[in-house]
Amino acid sequence: MSNTSTVHLRPSGRKLDELRAVNVQRNFTRYAEGSVLFCMGETQVLCTASVLEKVPPFLKGKGQGWVTAEYGMLPRATHTRSDREAAKGKQSGRTQEIQRLIGRSLRAVIDMELLGERTIQVDCDVLQADGGTRCASITGAWIAVADAVEGLLSQGVIAQNPIKDSVAAISVGMVNGHPTLDLDYPEDSGCDADMNVVMTGAGRYVEVQGTAEGHAFDRHELNALLSLAEQGIQSLKEKQKAARQG
Amino acid sequence: MSNTSTVHLRPSGRKLDELRAVNVQRNFTRYAEGSVLFCMGETQVLCTASVLEKVPPFLKGKGQGWVTAEYGMLPRATHTRSDREAAKGKQSGRTQEIQRLIGRSLRAVIDMELLGERTIQVDCDVLQADGGTRCASITGAWIAVADAVEGLLSQGVIAQNPIKDSVAAISVGMVNGHPTLDLDYPEDSGCDADMNVVMTGAGRYVEVQGTAEGHAFDRHELNALLSLAEQGIQSLKEKQKAARQG
Amino acid sequence: MSNTSTVHLRPSGRKLDELRAVNVQRNFTRYAEGSVLFCMGETQVLCTASVLEKVPPFLKGKGQGWVTAEYGMLPRATHTRSDREAAKGKQSGRTQEIQRLIGRSLRAVIDMELLGERTIQVDCDVLQADGGTRCASITGAWIAVADAVEGLLSQGVIAQNPIKDSVAAISVGMVNGHPTLDLDYPEDSGCDADMNVVMTGAGRYVEVQGTAEGHAFDRHELNALLSLAEQGIQSLKEKQKAARQG
Amino acid sequence: MSNTSTVHLRPSGRKLDELRAVNVQRNFTRYAEGSVLFCMGETQVLCTASVLEKVPPFLKGKGQGWVTAEYGMLPRATHTRSDREAAKGKQSGRTQEIQRLIGRSLRAVIDMELLGERTIQVDCDVLQADGGTRCASITGAWIAVADAVEGLLSQGVIAQNPIKDSVAAISVGMVNGHPTLDLDYPEDSGCDADMNVVMTGAGRYVEVQGTAEGHAFDRHELNALLSLAEQGIQSLKEKQKAARQG
Amino acid sequence: MSNTSTVHLRPSGRKLDELRAVNVQRNFTRYAEGSVLFCMGETQVLCTASVLEKVPPFLKGKGQGWVTAEYGMLPRATHTRSDREAAKGKQSGRTQEIQRLIGRSLRAVIDMELLGERTIQVDCDVLQADGGTRCASITGAWIAVADAVEGLLSQGVIAQNPIKDSVAAISVGMVNGHPTLDLDYPEDSGCDADMNVVMTGAGRYVEVQGTAEGHAFDRHELNALLSLAEQGIQSLKEKQKAARQG
Amino acid sequence: MSNTSTVHLRPSGRKLDELRAVNVQRNFTRYAEGSVLFCMGETQVLCTASVLEKVPPFLKGKGQGWVTAEYGMLPRATHTRSDREAAKGKQSGRTQEIQRLIGRSLRAVIDMELLGERTIQVDCDVLQADGGTRCASITGAWIAVADAVEGLLSQGVIAQNPIKDSVAAISVGMVNGHPTLDLDYPEDSGCDADMNVVMTGAGRYVEVQGTAEGHAFDRHELNALLSLAEQGIQSLKEKQKAARQG
Repeated sequence: MSNTSTVHLRPSGRKLDELRAVNVQRNFTRYAEGSVLFCMGETQVLCTASVLEKVPPFLKGKGQGWVTAEYGMLPRATHTRSDREAAKGKQSGRTQEIQRLIGRSLRAVIDMELLGERTIQVDCDVLQADGGTRCASITGAWIAVADAVEGLLSQGVIAQNPIKDSVAAISVGMVNGHPTLDLDYPEDSGCDADMNVVMTGAGRYVEVQGTAEGHAFDRHELNALLSLAEQGIQSLKEKQKAARQG
Repeated sequence: MSNTSTVHLRPSGRKLDELRAVNVQRNFTRYAEGSVLFCMGETQVLCTASVLEKVPPFLKGKGQGWVTAEYGMLPRATHTRSDREAAKGKQSGRTQEIQRLIGRSLRAVIDMELLGERTIQVDCDVLQADGGTRCASITGAWIAVADAVEGLLSQGVIAQNPIKDSVAAISVGMVNGHPTLDLDYPEDSGCDADMNVVMTGAGRYVEVQGTAEGHAFDRHELNALLSLAEQGIQSLKEKQKAARQG
Repeated sequence: MSNTSTVHLRPSGRKLDELRAVNVQRNFTRYAEGSVLFCMGETQVLCTASVLEKVPPFLKGKGQGWVTAEYGMLPRATHTRSDREAAKGKQSGRTQEIQRLIGRSLRAVIDMELLGERTIQVDCDVLQADGGTRCASITGAWIAVADAVEGLLSQGVIAQNPIKDSVAAISVGMVNGHPTLDLDYPEDSGCDADMNVVMTGAGRYVEVQGTAEGHAFDRHELNALLSLAEQGIQSLKEKQKAARQG
Repeated sequence: MSNTSTVHLRPSGRKLDELRAVNVQRNFTRYAEGSVLFCMGETQVLCTASVLEKVPPFLKGKGQGWVTAEYGMLPRATHTRSDREAAKGKQSGRTQEIQRLIGRSLRAVIDMELLGERTIQVDCDVLQADGGTRCASITGAWIAVADAVEGLLSQGVIAQNPIKDSVAAISVGMVNGHPTLDLDYPEDSGCDADMNVVMTGAGRYVEVQGTAEGHAFDRHELNALLSLAEQGIQSLKEKQKAARQG
Repeated sequence: MSNTSTVHLRPSGRKLDELRAVNVQRNFTRYAEGSVLFCMGETQVLCTASVLEKVPPFLKGKGQGWVTAEYGMLPRATHTRSDREAAKGKQSGRTQEIQRLIGRSLRAVIDMELLGERTIQVDCDVLQADGGTRCASITGAWIAVADAVEGLLSQGVIAQNPIKDSVAAISVGMVNGHPTLDLDYPEDSGCDADMNVVMTGAGRYVEVQGTAEGHAFDRHELNALLSLAEQGIQSLKEKQKAARQG
Repeated sequence: MSNTSTVHLRPSGRKLDELRAVNVQRNFTRYAEGSVLFCMGETQVLCTASVLEKVPPFLKGKGQGWVTAEYGMLPRATHTRSDREAAKGKQSGRTQEIQRLIGRSLRAVIDMELLGERTIQVDCDVLQADGGTRCASITGAWIAVADAVEGLLSQGVIAQNPIKDSVAAISVGMVNGHPTLDLDYPEDSGCDADMNVVMTGAGRYVEVQGTAEGHAFDRHELNALLSLAEQGIQSLKEKQKAARQG
């Protein structure tokens, strides 16, 4: 594939298996228990983790916690302004799909009993969007949650770390017939099929969401995309680790 | 796997790779251009396809058509009654996710230019739910759409069949550590990881949606699930074909 | 009037005082405590009765139960598709009017103290509509409620039958100047005045709702319509009885 | 019945067949084309008729007009304050039922072709409620509409009077076993069965809405109620006439 | 200024510093604990004060009360009909702004601890609007609240009067370059800048809301407007006092 | 007052007439025509100006433009998380009040005819809130609008600059009896009375919004607050100018 990637040009000049530059700013805002500005190229997502000393009704008195997420996009995060969801009075299906995905992905690596009867409420707000916002939200949110949990541990609120593993996400897709890593907006809107893959630090799948409106993909292509994603997520895992230590 | 399936008992007594009984009633209601009651075991979905001589605003004047879907569940389709979405005044995130999935799946096998400037509006309403309602919706809806298109062809409204291929969907999951086909409700609610796979008649992937809240799955398990799904979808494709000829 | 009915032709060929064919399928779905598909000609309504072990706030601790109803119509139950109320985010005035009528009609024949502190929640969902859906909903719902109550009695949850009488409903109207029984859609949309009558098995009125947009009716016509309705309801009462014994 | 009415005491001291005092103030507010404060005893409804030079979409270009109504109740019109519907963000089922009834009743006596392509929008807002607000709304609204139409005629906007007849409404009910005219709030909330009757000046029925939650009524009682209502409406018709001439 | 006011003509013929005629009808409706129809010229607002024996959640158990307000305008209070907010399903930003202002203004002169754990819920409903409805609402609402409090005192529900002072409001504005008192609708819609001033009986400011879309005003003009408002409010204070004694 | 300000301590250590540090980052995001991160101390607002080639319906064909604003706060911009307005399905009264204020303030300094038939849509989203967010929104939004207009001029879309003057806003309040400039959150939530003042670069008032729940203020205090605000706004005007040149 490295062969291919030297001849096939991406709009950004990246190689087919090349991630965008990742930039992580922890403590971006000061009030949230975890606050991370996570950037992949021009995509910028502010991920905050808030610790709330309550759980949803269905968990009351069960001795376990909850992790949930909400997602939003500032109206002018995008090339053309989109309507403000608060003004329209409802969240779109896309927004709900994404925030449910973020919540599930984080819950997959957190032990709810060790967390205790409290909620970590994650907010992912896209300040600037250039493709891959749901993946950036997951990868960045994990860092914010880890920061919030570190606070709970250092304050002695909880005794044992409920975070079982890291989790990160990346998009891959068939662009002009080539398996391509980390699609930016021009690639995403023009591709035949794309897939969002969420994996744990241990390399297990939490979510695999492949979709093809234009060109249904075969098993061979699926495998190529899965391999490319795995490689990208290994790299993101290192960057999460580095950011947390930085 | 056939070895395993003889010893591992499912609540329904099915083998691990065994579909539920499929039952298809075409022309179930009389006004819709296509109307199919699609049953997989105790899951019953009424799928109607309505032909509307208009397209959404973003397609006006572009010489192509549209296929879209809505999904609903009758309040007492389930073991315990759930609130009526019309009374609550909003569709849940789950509902929106499912209806978007149905629409994308159908669009993947239909040529929008051959369809012409009209919309096929699909409605999937679950009369009884025992797991797998989104997959049954897709598989049944394809038959309803095919019936509606046949009407357009026989009336001479369109000259050439816009349906490029069939499409069907099935759920698979890791239940008690075993890859299992076509989960019913007890299996679905207790499984570690499950996946909904949508494939064309030609055996290409339209959607792959795997999710693991409890137990992240590895590449080996993913492959086993994909193979099982492929086998199930081949069987569904035969049943679609038989129903259309019946 | 029998004289007239032989010469005046209805679109369906029925006589002026002739009901449509009634068809009742009990246990149509399997989870609800009562589940009836009630058909009058081409009008098909799925009526379920769910037993909920709670009462609305205004009845808490008062030692009595409640019966309430919701009504919906599948988008393509009708000749042309109507918008899904859940997607629009609100129930129409017509829907609310009908579901309030169904609830009041059923409460008129049920002893709330004998029911005890629980709710029977009725859902009437129209699968196919050819006029008279609110009447079919009431007549069918009574059977579903009776089935649900029979379950409560046989399980010993309640000791004494709270159902005091049966209740059924029928539409009548002035069509081309003739009092006509059980209007179907073409008759209903073209008539001068129509009336929905709800009566108990003992022949007493629970609801009388006559309305005339086109042609206000006089006392003589009102009396003819009331007599016709009474006759139709006696017939429906027999069919309810037969279905419950079947 | 006159015999009975002397011995049976109503809370207000009225006889069983006695209307409450009717008071009509035309031109109550100054901007509406018709504006009437209509009072029946302590029930006070402000009825305005606004002439709008447009019709709803389904009537565009058909050469005919429309009459429609909205209904509201000020939060403290009643003994205890009820929530403001604008603040709750939705109109109740009861409100929608009433405003649909008012609109139908008025349309029954107005020739839409003579009205021409314009809408008379009626607003009935209850300033004080002591039972019978929907009937007072209809009776008062007719006067407001007649005033608005008079304006159109005197300005030469329309050439011929589209009002075919007057229309008025009254409630009747079985109170303590006696047919009773024009129920006030204490009677309405405690009665066994009540009926709202809408009639034209010529004595024909536009709407008959009888309902019995507590005590289903027989044909004999129904007839007594209808006769009592007819008598009350004749009296209201005289008061409408007098107010219009006053 | 008296000089100027003789030569500069207002549409109403009033002098620049002249209030409109004030008319106060106490006990306008009979159920509310305080009910005042407050008229300034053609602006008519029905202000009711309801005593509710509960407080909002954030005040529970704190031994203090609350005063809050809602505002509405009947659809045809204005020259052309505006949509009914209950039918639209939301209150406009303007409505919310005004009802928040009324509530704050009243709370500024009431001792919440002396009021005790109860709420005075004010409703200001505009029956007819000719400018200055928010100011008339505040001035009239204070009288209604005072009446309601008098009832609590006379019934012995509270021992000490929680009303510390009166409060009233007036609009002023630059009209054709002249500081002008109590703008009516033609003046309000055509003025360069206007200000609503809310003051206590003791002459202290509770709210000052000046706004200039067309013509930003300087400090000198601001001072002139403030002086004019002060003079108007002194006059309103006298009228409030007289009405309460009348 | 300089005397007082040396002895009275503010939580931040600032003098009574001292602004917080102002920090302006232009081009903070890359897609909007104007994009400014405006910070006053810990308050951070992202202000974007989007140029839309359309106007609201009421301005169509009138040869003039429009400037409008929306305001939002990220859920965890504050010390404790507040609910996401998009998830609640409505904007609060406070939000609507603020966005209307921002729009009016900007329109006061822009010539709508020179702007031409287009809209400048401003979005002010608070990333971090420490008091004074509406004032920071106005001051920052003016810079974003100026940047957007500069783009229109340099591209030749408009020929003449429609911006007539700058506009800025500041809060002042009585804190512990002292007139105090630029309140931060601890001061704002504890103060007796506060005022938001919006002024043009030429020193004229666009908006004056003073409010006192706890302590009504007299004319003398009002004057002191107005003077303090004027001084602060002069300073902000310099910073706007410097940022635009930077």
